[in-house]
Amino acid sequence: MLSTRSSLIQTLPKLLRRNHLEGARKLVETAHEADIALLFRQLPITQQQKLFELLATPERQAEVLVEVDPGIARDFLEPVADAAILTLLRHMSDDDAADILELLPEERAEQLIKALRKTGDNDVIELFDYDSETAAGLMTTEFFALPETTSCEDALKALQGHGDEFEISYYLFVINEAGHLVGVVSLRELVLSPSTEILRSIMETEVVRVTVDMDQEDVARMVARYNLLAIPVVDSTNKLVGVVTVDDIIDVIRLEATEDMLKMAGVSDNIDQRSPLSAARARIPWLLASFVGGVLAAVLIGAYEASIAKVVPLAAFIPIVLGMGGNVGIQSATIVTRGLATGRIDTQQLTRVLSTELIVSLISGLVYGVLLGSVAWIAYYDSVLVKSGLLFGATVGLSVAAAMVIAATIGGLVPMLFARVNIDPALASGPFVTTAVDVFGILSYFSIAVVLLNI
Amino acid sequence: MLSTRSSLIQTLPKLLRRNHLEGARKLVETAHEADIALLFRQLPITQQQKLFELLATPERQAEVLVEVDPGIARDFLEPVADAAILTLLRHMSDDDAADILELLPEERAEQLIKALRKTGDNDVIELFDYDSETAAGLMTTEFFALPETTSCEDALKALQGHGDEFEISYYLFVINEAGHLVGVVSLRELVLSPSTEILRSIMETEVVRVTVDMDQEDVARMVARYNLLAIPVVDSTNKLVGVVTVDDIIDVIRLEATEDMLKMAGVSDNIDQRSPLSAARARIPWLLASFVGGVLAAVLIGAYEASIAKVVPLAAFIPIVLGMGGNVGIQSATIVTRGLATGRIDTQQLTRVLSTELIVSLISGLVYGVLLGSVAWIAYYDSVLVKSGLLFGATVGLSVAAAMVIAATIGGLVPMLFARVNIDPALASGPFVTTAVDVFGILSYFSIAVVLLNI
Repeated sequence: MLSTRSSLIQTLPKLLRRNHLEGARKLVETAHEADIALLFRQLPITQQQKLFELLATPERQAEVLVEVDPGIARDFLEPVADAAILTLLRHMSDDDAADILELLPEERAEQLIKALRKTGDNDVIELFDYDSETAAGLMTTEFFALPETTSCEDALKALQGHGDEFEISYYLFVINEAGHLVGVVSLRELVLSPSTEILRSIMETEVVRVTVDMDQEDVARMVARYNLLAIPVVDSTNKLVGVVTVDDIIDVIRLEATEDMLKMAGVSDNIDQRSPLSAARARIPWLLASFVGGVLAAVLIGAYEASIAKVVPLAAFIPIVLGMGGNVGIQSATIVTRGLATGRIDTQQLTRVLSTELIVSLISGLVYGVLLGSVAWIAYYDSVLVKSGLLFGATVGLSVAAAMVIAATIGGLVPMLFARVNIDPALASGPFVTTAVDVFGILSYFSIAVVLLNI
Repeated sequence: MLSTRSSLIQTLPKLLRRNHLEGARKLVETAHEADIALLFRQLPITQQQKLFELLATPERQAEVLVEVDPGIARDFLEPVADAAILTLLRHMSDDDAADILELLPEERAEQLIKALRKTGDNDVIELFDYDSETAAGLMTTEFFALPETTSCEDALKALQGHGDEFEISYYLFVINEAGHLVGVVSLRELVLSPSTEILRSIMETEVVRVTVDMDQEDVARMVARYNLLAIPVVDSTNKLVGVVTVDDIIDVIRLEATEDMLKMAGVSDNIDQRSPLSAARARIPWLLASFVGGVLAAVLIGAYEASIAKVVPLAAFIPIVLGMGGNVGIQSATIVTRGLATGRIDTQQLTRVLSTELIVSLISGLVYGVLLGSVAWIAYYDSVLVKSGLLFGATVGLSVAAAMVIAATIGGLVPMLFARVNIDPALASGPFVTTAVDVFGILSYFSIAVVLLNI
């Protein structure tokens, strides 16, 4: 399998380029759909189309398409005819079909939905209407549920009769007459139980479940916490309406981690951009906060131009004071943001979080304050540029310590406050914290300088 | 279930504090082990001990202990007697037991292993010897494998006889006489197949597998890519030696994402620190790179003190030039690092990655260069501090654009080079890139100033 994969990746693009379609078809036949999907990343669109046509059946084409990166799939589908897309959609599970529809321009998606409605594919239509970042957006409606009075033997027979229609059936959900979720039996337990036993007597009744509107990050946390292979989705009346499987959860966890990292670094969460121009368009707005912050910093420093003119070496230490502050701020913000995302920190623990960040930054501030103060003192010991090397060292040392403490407070506080008012805390850690740290760092630096150096 | 959980979290700590142990025991009886484990985070150690004793059996205690955060479990186990730990270890799956042993001081772990050896628990001992960040460190050796000539009926019977001993058995691995992995049958296929069929005729022979020494991040990528519930682990001769299940993969994905984020923010990857002092000790070294970089920046700026004395406003724009550069550097480094981690970028694509980052930064640099240059020009249009407002604006605008292009190049290049020589690229994106950007940003800023402003 592994050797197949590397030979596929190396050989197929060459075969396609040289139009050796028969050789390519043979390779494609035995390859895993996920590997073929991966190849789309490195092929130009004309060769993607050739590769796609080599896939023997619409089933197989659909399997590959759902594994292709969304941004690439969007470009790929643009020139494909509606009839062909409809055939592909009909060969997908309903949740995958809804995801593909999401990629298309709104008008086109609605036309396709109209066509699906005519042929009665209502599940896809329903799923498309849900917010794609909720449990409903992740779930499939093609799950397996049986009444609680079914015997194990009948349950197994039912599975054998219908098993192929369902995406996965490692859990058998048990419902009452009203369709409400009352229990769960794993396929393993079903196989291990006497055939005459009824489901009610072997089912687990404490079923971890989520509601249709739950945020996908919370759904992922539940699946991770309880080590589940699938989680049932219920509506507000506890009626079972769908199931989210663990493979989709893994995608959510990876995607959310990527989004958080990019937000923290100040990049748009869409990095599927293929052209540098669209990448630039996505990244430029994120630099605006930093630009405004920088202009603000320039204005503030400009206000102290007379002080700088008197003690020019003050300028040399601006970057390290702001840089150390910025780093501490990002440390604190990252620890708090990631703690909130993984559930290690709770929005209610503001005092605990802030006091920890404060004490940690006081200790680090003391260490680096003494260090930087000494460096500045030694460097300007007998310089004509400052009146007293000792006081200059004290100014710089005290300023870096102050910047670090201020930064830790801002870095700890902002994501907690963001989370409390339901703004994504990851947004806080990037330019936002850095800019705040810059402004307060400059103010404290020059205030300390004005007092200690008497300028 | 959900309501149980929130009442548990609110009520149990109160009951424990007031020593209402009978009420607490009742709550604990019906609670999920993952929820009880979560409570350990907010309880002091004496109440953790009380809670642990309320768990009715060693099985249940073991189930809770494996779900507790590693740092908390380490502190909790310190005062526990060896005999009690041995009992707990014997009630865990071998991979969980090996993880718990990893938490203990080396000497103590070896004593416990000696005791386990006496009673013949060799699996745990073997697993403990493997590197914990490889496939072997994740796998359990308690998997279910049968010869290829077994009939489906016999396979089901074998499962019914032994199913309880295995952590999970949704896949049935098929081996030949030499113990080599030759196929896989899902429990679902087994149930759906006629009982007289032999495994060889229904098994999938293209089995995705990993070797014992494969890095856990690569194992996670395989499971995610192929949507697996478990992945078999083989030794160098293709002998099946273990299985990694998807719940452990989810933990790896979350943990690796957290580690990457923290490394990128310049924080040690161990944030399980409970005391601020140990947290400070963990974070202080990570600030050293930034400190050294800052001192370097101060020295460089110091070398241009004569220039600053002549044109004091140059000092005001140092933070924005370095700040915009730093932000662009972090954007590029994050996109490349995350792309490498998720497999979207390959270490071989250096030219493609660098040219994208270069073009993107040229566009952004043009935008913000013109913007900042205009701001500086307008601000210092008729200032006595500069000879020509236009030339001053040009200096600042050109400098910020240069810093952004330099930063994108460094931010794209460093993680790619790190990955090529097998250093974790996440380490590049933090202080390392920022420091490099500071140094080159200052040099280009003052070089441009010296030329354009003729100072």
